[in-house]
Amino acid sequence: MDATLSDIVADCAAAKSAATTLAAASTETKNRALGAIASGLTGNVDTILAANAEDLTDERARGLSEALVDRLTLTAERVEAMAAGVKEVESLDDPVGEVMEARTLDSGLDLKKVRVPLGVIAVVYEARPNVTIDCAVLTIKSGNAILLRGSSYAERTNGALAAVVRDGLAEAGLPVDSVVLSAGGGRDALAGLATQEGVVDLLIPRGGEGLKNALKEVATVPVMYAASGNCHIYVHADADLEMGRAIAFNAKVSRPGVCNSAETLLVDSQVAAAFLPLALKQLAEAGVELVGDDRVRENDGGTEVRLAVHDDWDTEFLDLKLAVAVVDDLDAAVEHVNRHGSGHSEAIVTGNTQAADIFAEKVDAAAVYVNASTRFTDGFEYGMGAEIGNSTQKLHARGPIGLRELTTFKYVVRGDGQVRD
Amino acid sequence: MDATLSDIVADCAAAKSAATTLAAASTETKNRALGAIASGLTGNVDTILAANAEDLTDERARGLSEALVDRLTLTAERVEAMAAGVKEVESLDDPVGEVMEARTLDSGLDLKKVRVPLGVIAVVYEARPNVTIDCAVLTIKSGNAILLRGSSYAERTNGALAAVVRDGLAEAGLPVDSVVLSAGGGRDALAGLATQEGVVDLLIPRGGEGLKNALKEVATVPVMYAASGNCHIYVHADADLEMGRAIAFNAKVSRPGVCNSAETLLVDSQVAAAFLPLALKQLAEAGVELVGDDRVRENDGGTEVRLAVHDDWDTEFLDLKLAVAVVDDLDAAVEHVNRHGSGHSEAIVTGNTQAADIFAEKVDAAAVYVNASTRFTDGFEYGMGAEIGNSTQKLHARGPIGLRELTTFKYVVRGDGQVRD
Repeated sequence: MDATLSDIVADCAAAKSAATTLAAASTETKNRALGAIASGLTGNVDTILAANAEDLTDERARGLSEALVDRLTLTAERVEAMAAGVKEVESLDDPVGEVMEARTLDSGLDLKKVRVPLGVIAVVYEARPNVTIDCAVLTIKSGNAILLRGSSYAERTNGALAAVVRDGLAEAGLPVDSVVLSAGGGRDALAGLATQEGVVDLLIPRGGEGLKNALKEVATVPVMYAASGNCHIYVHADADLEMGRAIAFNAKVSRPGVCNSAETLLVDSQVAAAFLPLALKQLAEAGVELVGDDRVRENDGGTEVRLAVHDDWDTEFLDLKLAVAVVDDLDAAVEHVNRHGSGHSEAIVTGNTQAADIFAEKVDAAAVYVNASTRFTDGFEYGMGAEIGNSTQKLHARGPIGLRELTTFKYVVRGDGQVRD
Repeated sequence: MDATLSDIVADCAAAKSAATTLAAASTETKNRALGAIASGLTGNVDTILAANAEDLTDERARGLSEALVDRLTLTAERVEAMAAGVKEVESLDDPVGEVMEARTLDSGLDLKKVRVPLGVIAVVYEARPNVTIDCAVLTIKSGNAILLRGSSYAERTNGALAAVVRDGLAEAGLPVDSVVLSAGGGRDALAGLATQEGVVDLLIPRGGEGLKNALKEVATVPVMYAASGNCHIYVHADADLEMGRAIAFNAKVSRPGVCNSAETLLVDSQVAAAFLPLALKQLAEAGVELVGDDRVRENDGGTEVRLAVHDDWDTEFLDLKLAVAVVDDLDAAVEHVNRHGSGHSEAIVTGNTQAADIFAEKVDAAAVYVNASTRFTDGFEYGMGAEIGNSTQKLHARGPIGLRELTTFKYVVRGDGQVRD
């Protein structure tokens, strides 16, 4: 075992030890820690920004794209927004202890299904410092300890933020190892983390398919992938075309670097000629690079659309790039979505209720939208408070991973001596 | 790819194709299939028993223990009990389409969280023919296709039962490949099944730790382990000792071959001398082989108790064998249970409410009992209808896997053109 691997084993053990205390903590105590963290962010904004400036001027940061530098950059306003987010989580209901079901069994036993923390959660994430705070406060509130494995690009920023979190925990009398920041060791340390059976109760990798595939090969602990979003907007034959253009534009342009943005636009053949020229023009004017199939290029109205290659339909561009296809009908749209989508968020624009219902039923994804942008898939927008990511798998959590998704349950069954026949 | 591996790939593809139709089937249609299956079991009892007789007289069956032969054996009564079980599932509510949550978001969007089938479920199971029927009808009712991978010991019996199921599906106009029986190919075929990503939505291995460990190394599809139960009965210092004896006896003796039976008895040091002699005598008289620690042997009242070895505390005997230990106090009991238990079912016997609450909170298991036998962990007993197994993991399902545990959900979000700022 090299040093970094043993480090991560020690980090996990520390979190595991803290988890027992945290699981039994009262809502009041957990909220006191969150309040202290919010104050700590505001009170330490200079320290945090100084650490962030060091990360941004590190020579490694020179290789980052403009979008990635933006994600890594903190400002006083962004730190204040983090603090406001912490207060928001403080105001949410505590999921722990909720009695999900209660009944008396035929045997006379009193059964309660009670929500409990998972235990130790590990999150592997990209260079977005706000994720450090979002994940830490969601797990504290849900009674879980967390091991945070952030990007080395954000090492100093994450260190400053984790220090604020741990100070807040101490102030509330909770174990500081409820939140452990782990770094270094590369893929070996990641593999070590992913095999901490009996210690790590849930591993959540955020980020792309590369990380997902790397973990699939080695992970033996339970994993919930908060992975890629290859999302589609389908403009149906009975769509309000203006609405279709506005939704497609919003889904692609408003924040292209996030998982709920659209990567492919599907247009029904019956409205391709009426819809495409203006829609493509607006997208191109916003700087969107367009690739499309032959039928799209026949209806491009003069806007440049390069011929799409096979991989374009399966790619999450996370950038101002959009693949556009004409489809024969609703069935063809559903088939395309189910073949190429990643099960994240899919939208149909239509005035036809029946078509909307068929799309909603047949499309296999966490979120299906009718006449709305895919960009709404988000824990805040859904009224769940913050989120730790969006699950694209079907088990346990699907869509935004909020407080309740970070819990499990146990059956507590009380009797007066019952035995089974 | 050898023949059997390509067979299993074809089997999975057939189930996947049927799953789409089944997912959209009405409750009425699915219930019609279940009714036809119940009638088919009754009508084909002779054929089923003849097939079973062939399995039982096969030379391979000669190597089976008495308990395993009993599990494999069908009688007319047992087939009738299966048919009654099918009617029971027919009477349960259809989980598909249930609106789990509904709200209007701040954006004006109408959000519904709707329960939907998982898709294709695969179950790998031991030589228990009733499992073939239980799994098939639970997945049909929950709108899922299923690939059944039974034991080769029960090959002919399972074939006869699957034929009845597929006839019932055909009678209701549902695709017969909603239920596919797969056999042969050994560990290679199992590995093939466990890597059918995008086809198999959930793999449920029933059975012991060997199967679990074999799958952990290769599985890339989502897996829910319905694995071993290393269950404990803890007789607390404030226990009604008669109740403690009755519960321990029931949990060990009533059906030692199942996962919710007890494997270890923990006795508080304060009551060891008063409790153990009679309890051990009764267990020994029922044929239970006893192993224990030194303090147990000092209080055995003359009943033979061999010295337990380290592995005994971690072993699911699934037999008339019990490990017995004296523990210092409640904390020591909790620590023993959390260290050695498999997260299945754990019981405390006590008249002390506070001790009961601490045990219920601190023990990390699917089901925690106060003054009742662990044997109650069961889908029928819990009022969930039949079960496909008992999950010992924390994600998605914990405890009995019934109809709802075989579903996922999707968010269906309807708007009138909403885009995100």
